[in-house]
Amino acid sequence: MGGAVLRRLVDRRERLLRRSGCELELCAVAEPDVPPDLAGPLEALTYYEDALEMIREENPEVLVELIGGLEPAGSLVLRALDRGIDVVTANKELLATRGEEIFRTASENDARIRFEASVGGCIPVVRTIREALVDTDFTSIYGIINGTCNYVLTRMTDASESFEESLALAQEKGYAEADPTYDVEGKDSAHKTSLLAALAFGSRVDPDELQREGITRIRPEIIEDADRLGYRIKLLGVARRVDGRLDVRVHPALVPEDSALAAVRDEYNAVMIQGDPIGSCLLSGKGAGGEPTATAVVADVLSLAGQSSRARTPMYFNGEELPLLPTRESEGRFYMRLSAVDRPGVLARVTRILGERDISIDSVHQSGRSAEDHVPVILTTHRARRGDVARAVETIADLDVVEDEPVWLPIEEDFERS
Amino acid sequence: MGGAVLRRLVDRRERLLRRSGCELELCAVAEPDVPPDLAGPLEALTYYEDALEMIREENPEVLVELIGGLEPAGSLVLRALDRGIDVVTANKELLATRGEEIFRTASENDARIRFEASVGGCIPVVRTIREALVDTDFTSIYGIINGTCNYVLTRMTDASESFEESLALAQEKGYAEADPTYDVEGKDSAHKTSLLAALAFGSRVDPDELQREGITRIRPEIIEDADRLGYRIKLLGVARRVDGRLDVRVHPALVPEDSALAAVRDEYNAVMIQGDPIGSCLLSGKGAGGEPTATAVVADVLSLAGQSSRARTPMYFNGEELPLLPTRESEGRFYMRLSAVDRPGVLARVTRILGERDISIDSVHQSGRSAEDHVPVILTTHRARRGDVARAVETIADLDVVEDEPVWLPIEEDFERS
Repeated sequence: MGGAVLRRLVDRRERLLRRSGCELELCAVAEPDVPPDLAGPLEALTYYEDALEMIREENPEVLVELIGGLEPAGSLVLRALDRGIDVVTANKELLATRGEEIFRTASENDARIRFEASVGGCIPVVRTIREALVDTDFTSIYGIINGTCNYVLTRMTDASESFEESLALAQEKGYAEADPTYDVEGKDSAHKTSLLAALAFGSRVDPDELQREGITRIRPEIIEDADRLGYRIKLLGVARRVDGRLDVRVHPALVPEDSALAAVRDEYNAVMIQGDPIGSCLLSGKGAGGEPTATAVVADVLSLAGQSSRARTPMYFNGEELPLLPTRESEGRFYMRLSAVDRPGVLARVTRILGERDISIDSVHQSGRSAEDHVPVILTTHRARRGDVARAVETIADLDVVEDEPVWLPIEEDFERS
Repeated sequence: MGGAVLRRLVDRRERLLRRSGCELELCAVAEPDVPPDLAGPLEALTYYEDALEMIREENPEVLVELIGGLEPAGSLVLRALDRGIDVVTANKELLATRGEEIFRTASENDARIRFEASVGGCIPVVRTIREALVDTDFTSIYGIINGTCNYVLTRMTDASESFEESLALAQEKGYAEADPTYDVEGKDSAHKTSLLAALAFGSRVDPDELQREGITRIRPEIIEDADRLGYRIKLLGVARRVDGRLDVRVHPALVPEDSALAAVRDEYNAVMIQGDPIGSCLLSGKGAGGEPTATAVVADVLSLAGQSSRARTPMYFNGEELPLLPTRESEGRFYMRLSAVDRPGVLARVTRILGERDISIDSVHQSGRSAEDHVPVILTTHRARRGDVARAVETIADLDVVEDEPVWLPIEEDFERS
């Protein structure tokens, strides 16, 4: 991405000046692979092998960090902020992990930090939460913020492919990395969700501690069940205020098929922001890709270069300090699929276990016989606590009449249909 | 709305400071109806009967104009900018009509102007186009930007009501004014579309000159036809770059039922922004309402107060000066409904007229007989020029076998499905 940002800043200099009223001057770069076509225009620049050396030697107004990962990016960003240099970064992992320290350093040194490209590519999620909705009291944020996972789930839905087939196609199309673990296991979404929770609610949420489940367990029959029930499966990042506590999690969920989130397809991302008095606001678009994301970095640079601050950088990561809601207390409706021996009384045993945990059933669907005398049972519940559902599923899984591990997922529908 | 903004600035002062790092001080107000609960907190303010007198006497950093209409709002805004005072306004009519003069005055006097609340209520459309997407080359903007019309069209679709019934309900619910003309005839959308065209393309588009049609001619059978064809009827504001010219218009159109725009229901607004390299980006939410819109005004005030400019205010209204595409040259597919005598050869005459104008037919649907021996004929065309379609419809309307005025609407589907 560094190359894409450099090229845009060079090639589009006149256009950016006209559009923003702001003229940028590149002074130094620490980028081992400067694109050959930029070697000429960038000849006058000072080059550094080592980014940390660059920030020791140079005195820019804005530092752009696009290394990614925790180090040396973290040291680079902190040293710049410590010297009062404004920073633009796309580093969601760094911000989610060390955001508190980074924002404190920025605030103490009257430096600013922008990071639009860290969540949702070119969709202006960060600006919207920080600036446009500064006078909104947020109640919840629901994000489809990983393009790889959304592409895979869309293929599984539309083309009835398996997870493996869809992932292979995503890799072929460049929507998934050769090692897709970071995406499909929900880690990328966890970093972004942690960041969104900090921005909207002021809370520090350790991305390694929030409830996280990726999409690797999603099988075609789950997609089909959802479809029959009137839902789509989406990998969601959720941050909700619930009775003074913060419910933060990342997992696949069923969303109503006629909701705006269900309509977000392929590699697209979307973030639904809800609050008082705005109701519901949805932003969607391409969440990834070098060029679109580079435009977000350029816009951040221009906004810093074009304006000087007359206000302190607000703190996001310890602002309101809402305590986290324990995962088990998270409430909602749930979907459940189990494979049971096709014998009288089985359903009664399952529903009794649910009843003992005060989980009431909204719908049951039992399909025809399979070859092995096991039939799928598909259940949806009324509102229940996640912890109760988890324990009930454990008990059900132990029944001798139940084969395989039951699958269960939350149904998310506590949002306005915009 | 003035009252809502005042109340938020007073009641939420601490919260806004914490969130923005920026402390605001109210110094004077020209508002005849200050809400009684604010009389105490605002006691120390200087009150003016006359806003123009206020701007002569006071020397604020930011002026907030929420009078609406062309005068005295225009004089107020221009006098403030002329003195280098930054301005926040929600006045779409003023900006659409006198934007060039206002932006020139701002630019010449190093003053800034923000107007997020003028389009899309609290949806951050203006910020997104001006700032977040400053490095995007826009290709098109499609907006559902009038909540009244979208509510009426949604009711007509979902509840199969007539235009009159839906409008009456909208009035009852507070989504439509007692005199709904400004909304249902598309004038409000024309002002907003003109503004969006200026922001994205730098062009000055006179809102009184752009092709404009409201929703008053939409009858239940048109909604039903669209549904059968797989579309929804939406009042769209469109601004598209077409071969170096700008195609700007406001009219009801058919949009594919599985598109993101079709999913925008009730009083919600949405703006789809397309460009290079971002592809497609959609923003949706509540486009109106005093409180949501007030938050947009407050956010604009904070962004001006919290930052001082180091860049010239860019010009929007004469930036690129794309020539306007004449309405008749606008191209696309069209839907058409006519009531014809149920007699052999009628369809042949209609299709011959279309063929003579090089308009080829995509689909024809002729329903069963009606009581009066007139049957509805529903046509869709392949891509054609609007001017050709208009002339063909005129000729068809003159046929002795055609009753009533034929109805025809563009089909808009040149956007990515996000």
